[in-house]
Amino acid sequence: MTLKYADRMSRMKASDIRELLKLTQDPTIISFAGGLPAEELFPVEELMEISQKVLEDLGGKALQYSTTEGHIPLRKAIAKRMKKLGIDMTEENILITNGSQQGLEFSGKLFINEGDVVLCERPTYLGAIDAFKAYGPEFIEIQTDDNGMIMEDLERVLKETKKVKFIYLVPDFQNPSGRTWNRERRKRLVELANQYDVAIIEDNPYGELRFEGELLPAVAHYDTTGNVVFLGTLSKIFCPGLRIGWIAAKKEVIEKYVLIKQSSDLQTNTLSQMQASMFLEEYDIEAHIEKIKNLYRTRRDLMMKTMKEEFPEGVSWTYPEGGLFIWVVLPEHMNGRELAIKALEQNVAYVPGGAFFANGGQENTFRLNFSSMDEARIVEGIKRLGKVLREEI
Amino acid sequence: MTLKYADRMSRMKASDIRELLKLTQDPTIISFAGGLPAEELFPVEELMEISQKVLEDLGGKALQYSTTEGHIPLRKAIAKRMKKLGIDMTEENILITNGSQQGLEFSGKLFINEGDVVLCERPTYLGAIDAFKAYGPEFIEIQTDDNGMIMEDLERVLKETKKVKFIYLVPDFQNPSGRTWNRERRKRLVELANQYDVAIIEDNPYGELRFEGELLPAVAHYDTTGNVVFLGTLSKIFCPGLRIGWIAAKKEVIEKYVLIKQSSDLQTNTLSQMQASMFLEEYDIEAHIEKIKNLYRTRRDLMMKTMKEEFPEGVSWTYPEGGLFIWVVLPEHMNGRELAIKALEQNVAYVPGGAFFANGGQENTFRLNFSSMDEARIVEGIKRLGKVLREEI
Repeated sequence: MTLKYADRMSRMKASDIRELLKLTQDPTIISFAGGLPAEELFPVEELMEISQKVLEDLGGKALQYSTTEGHIPLRKAIAKRMKKLGIDMTEENILITNGSQQGLEFSGKLFINEGDVVLCERPTYLGAIDAFKAYGPEFIEIQTDDNGMIMEDLERVLKETKKVKFIYLVPDFQNPSGRTWNRERRKRLVELANQYDVAIIEDNPYGELRFEGELLPAVAHYDTTGNVVFLGTLSKIFCPGLRIGWIAAKKEVIEKYVLIKQSSDLQTNTLSQMQASMFLEEYDIEAHIEKIKNLYRTRRDLMMKTMKEEFPEGVSWTYPEGGLFIWVVLPEHMNGRELAIKALEQNVAYVPGGAFFANGGQENTFRLNFSSMDEARIVEGIKRLGKVLREEI
Repeated sequence: MTLKYADRMSRMKASDIRELLKLTQDPTIISFAGGLPAEELFPVEELMEISQKVLEDLGGKALQYSTTEGHIPLRKAIAKRMKKLGIDMTEENILITNGSQQGLEFSGKLFINEGDVVLCERPTYLGAIDAFKAYGPEFIEIQTDDNGMIMEDLERVLKETKKVKFIYLVPDFQNPSGRTWNRERRKRLVELANQYDVAIIEDNPYGELRFEGELLPAVAHYDTTGNVVFLGTLSKIFCPGLRIGWIAAKKEVIEKYVLIKQSSDLQTNTLSQMQASMFLEEYDIEAHIEKIKNLYRTRRDLMMKTMKEEFPEGVSWTYPEGGLFIWVVLPEHMNGRELAIKALEQNVAYVPGGAFFANGGQENTFRLNFSSMDEARIVEGIKRLGKVLREEI
């Protein structure tokens, strides 16, 4: 007996990050691999209070089936908070998802026919590559610099390429590069998308985690025609375990996403939606975000200072003004995957950069996470990594 | 600006049940439409205790990212409980999903190429039709009687049809018909699937909710080659709001499902998995199931007694030995959709049966849910429905 799978399964492979994330469960490993938020800041006490209150107030309703679109007070609270990023929407524009990864998967399902073209940053978030890949698109990677996609390259590709369905980007403190698009490019991106009649998938999990400088408006802020789909999440500003993400888009588009959500898993967890909603309404999430930013800023600064001291010449890295990640570029003859094995022998983990290129390539790179390890482990881990780098360079 | 969707979206339409479920949020409506478990039995007090204990014991870990496969103690507890249905598996055979609807969606993704054939019962669960439809299969409906699919019809179709990928069924107290497969057919189904080299998707949300007679082994109990994929859920024996379902299959198959889960939403809610796990380990779920069965048995009996008194001659219905649903067949000239509008005018809702036929058809049917309305509303609702039926027959 051999089960016959669908052809798409040949495109779906176990990812590097997955194997590495398994390692991070081993507490002896200093892991800069995952994208884990700092656990010590999760509002555990508050959740204990909230759990009681929600169950006292709402009883069985909190454990019952609910609507596919999501809990209305949560959608309202999210719509209100999005104004911070310059997005003017109501709860009717919002569908609650099981984390923002589900927004990526649904976007693949909504837009991609096999052979369609998806434009993405070079490098780009590997979870998005995985989600879209199931639907068989061709990826075209757009060149990037410290301010986002290079607009001339994007325009050239849009001009030359048929069947572009959408442009995917992480505009703030990108995963994996840590880089941020400037205002000018955000605006220009929307103009180009309008001109060439393609959608934009704006994946914005880190936008509010800016440690310095001015908060930038989301790409969706510049939207004039409703072609931007915004993916948000509470994972990085509240906690990821409750799996609360959302899709925000114009109403006709949200209606399509709702159909997909309904056949995919009916709805997101009722209790967790009510808990998240109470946290947003009755607790001070802005103060909570300040705490997160203060801790991550300290950790970023410490990691970068230690990198400067320990990493050999010829190795360079980005300077993230927020978020969770630093992107490291090695001399061209070096290989981030091979080096990862040597680092693991020293009980240090990171994610090799090759996995973040939709069409493969640039193996002389890796991604470091600075949010999840405490200060002592950051120093010790970077020292060990520096030693490996100095030996191998 | 017109967004260009994928071709599959033309197959995805808003379903009847969805529109009807929206109505059930109106408390003035007596709803026999949804498949809502009785809210008053949800273990609210226990969940309050559990929420505190999980957060006290595990702190931030309960709010952090976790593995795609799911929380190991929960998978172990589920494996142990599945022995009740005659399934001998370990946690390695189990992937936790966001409700069992997600298991249906993933099964479509894993197996179906456009144009492949899916065999299903006539009638079948409409959520499964919706989930599979996205992947563009051809459905062939197998004739059924009170003991499940008619094996001669199944064998004939398997013999005549190429590209059958799997056989989908709800063996116990089926949604919508309330009917149950006998042992002989379960065994024969597995033999035929082996012979013709096709998978079986066993969707088993109600198996444990048997009010009378002997608990039957799951179809997966008869599996000898690993071609049965079992979909389970805690929605009907614990609560649906936490969205805890699972896929159980041989290890190589689970590995494929894990890849799909990872790109779809990374993982199921961490906190809810821990809560469910504690409920299964430290509370008496068997006693809880007894309570549910007692209440549902009473409601079923009352509904059937009232139907017998109030429904006119020429209308027939199934006798479910468990589960949540009764299936009503009207005289052929009558139409369940048209009648639903008349019933709604009397503030009574049910789901018209036509939606449960993968290729359309048999409109002279409807589904009644007996689990969610209290006794007074059951009597009142069936009386009103009887009046409508007597007027229209």
